Amino acid sequence: MANSSSGDSVVDRVVRVLEAFPEGVSSLPLTELAERSGLPLTSAHRLVRQLADYRLLEQAPGGKVQVGLRLWELVNRNSPILLLRQAALPFMDDIHQVLNQNVNLGVLQGDDVLFVERLSRRGSVANRAKVAGRMPVHISSAGVALMSGQPRAAQNAYLARFKDPAGKVDADHVRRLLATSAERGYAELAGVVDPETWGIAVPIEDRQRRTVAAIGVVVPLAEVRIHQIVPALRTAARGIGRQLGALAPTP
Amino acid sequence: MANSSSGDSVVDRVVRVLEAFPEGVSSLPLTELAERSGLPLTSAHRLVRQLADYRLLEQAPGGKVQVGLRLWELVNRNSPILLLRQAALPFMDDIHQVLNQNVNLGVLQGDDVLFVERLSRRGSVANRAKVAGRMPVHISSAGVALMSGQPRAAQNAYLARFKDPAGKVDADHVRRLLATSAERGYAELAGVVDPETWGIAVPIEDRQRRTVAAIGVVVPLAEVRIHQIVPALRTAARGIGRQLGALAPTP
Repeated sequence: MANSSSGDSVVDRVVRVLEAFPEGVSSLPLTELAERSGLPLTSAHRLVRQLADYRLLEQAPGGKVQVGLRLWELVNRNSPILLLRQAALPFMDDIHQVLNQNVNLGVLQGDDVLFVERLSRRGSVANRAKVAGRMPVHISSAGVALMSGQPRAAQNAYLARFKDPAGKVDADHVRRLLATSAERGYAELAGVVDPETWGIAVPIEDRQRRTVAAIGVVVPLAEVRIHQIVPALRTAARGIGRQLGALAPTP
Repeated sequence: MANSSSGDSVVDRVVRVLEAFPEGVSSLPLTELAERSGLPLTSAHRLVRQLADYRLLEQAPGGKVQVGLRLWELVNRNSPILLLRQAALPFMDDIHQVLNQNVNLGVLQGDDVLFVERLSRRGSVANRAKVAGRMPVHISSAGVALMSGQPRAAQNAYLARFKDPAGKVDADHVRRLLATSAERGYAELAGVVDPETWGIAVPIEDRQRRTVAAIGVVVPLAEVRIHQIVPALRTAARGIGRQLGALAPTP
């Protein structure tokens, strides 16, 4: 249905246009958008105009193109992520106040953790987790906490296809990391992404005891207060899990 | 391009599917999705399958359909709203801590205020502002603060088409409300949406002194601390405006 002469569908082209924006770049000139999406300039121009009619894309300063407010509204008001954020934010705020550090909330997306919320205090340590940004599972404490809570088959499939682009660790190392985290009930990674920081995260389970998200902190490596951090995170995770049950629409 | 026999485009049908989810409902059975989007069941089925292939939609519990994680990711990682939230969250958190009340962040979308962030404390007063939810400008303090900061022509156009569905106020009333708010530099609405609550909001200006957002609180009507609230909100708004300038991509 609705295929162009080159055989790609309109949906495919819309996705290519949305994917063309690099992470952290909110607007692009049309020519660059066409180039990055691999569409001929005329096709890109026509599609952008069509999407702009519905305010899915809009004009940005300097004649650039950006994601439209209407698309943001449509996607966010009905996304299950909104329910998760709503359940988690007060607890993340508690952690933030009590520990005075960056707090992240992530979900599993393929072999990555996708961060869906983040609270960071001005002046706190570097935190690579951006909202709607990803990190590979094995280098993020939230990722390890999430994967360690998945069913055995999913973990084995992940480990079977595991490959570290940095060439630092192998599947056996990650398997041990997951096993240790599952046993302890929390994941910790020191100095993996940033030599100066320590990531600690715990899984969040819904009422069916499925691991659906992870909450974690990123703290200065020098400041190891793991005996304070883990109980605080666990308490928050339990609270969020209960709220999730309450908020989830009836199946 | 890509029109069906009935003349509507694929983009049009995608928008109709996304718009079919009512606010606050994150998943729908396919039959209801087809009905609400006004598409024949077979067309809806085909389109949903196509969108699911790209994970723009996904399967929800009970065989329902929901907005996909991938769509959430694509839209949020590149939305200008992310920059605004990023600039505003630490300041919203300050207000939240200092005043111990609900804090909202909104932008103008047509004749409505679209709420893009909200912090609410457990046990605080009712707050109708939902993230990605809307309220008509004239019944929301954030809406009044936003509109009172718009250029005169935009305000006049808004007032010319103004109609209160509740039949309580007329355009002249709203004109006075906007004028008073512009003069004072803040908007206040008592007991308009909820008889028990008071909304107070101030405009946020970017470096070009354009009103681009509003920050506000919703407090119990009994607890009128406006002399504390307004300076706190103004301080936050100035901080956010400065951050926005720093975060905005070069035009």
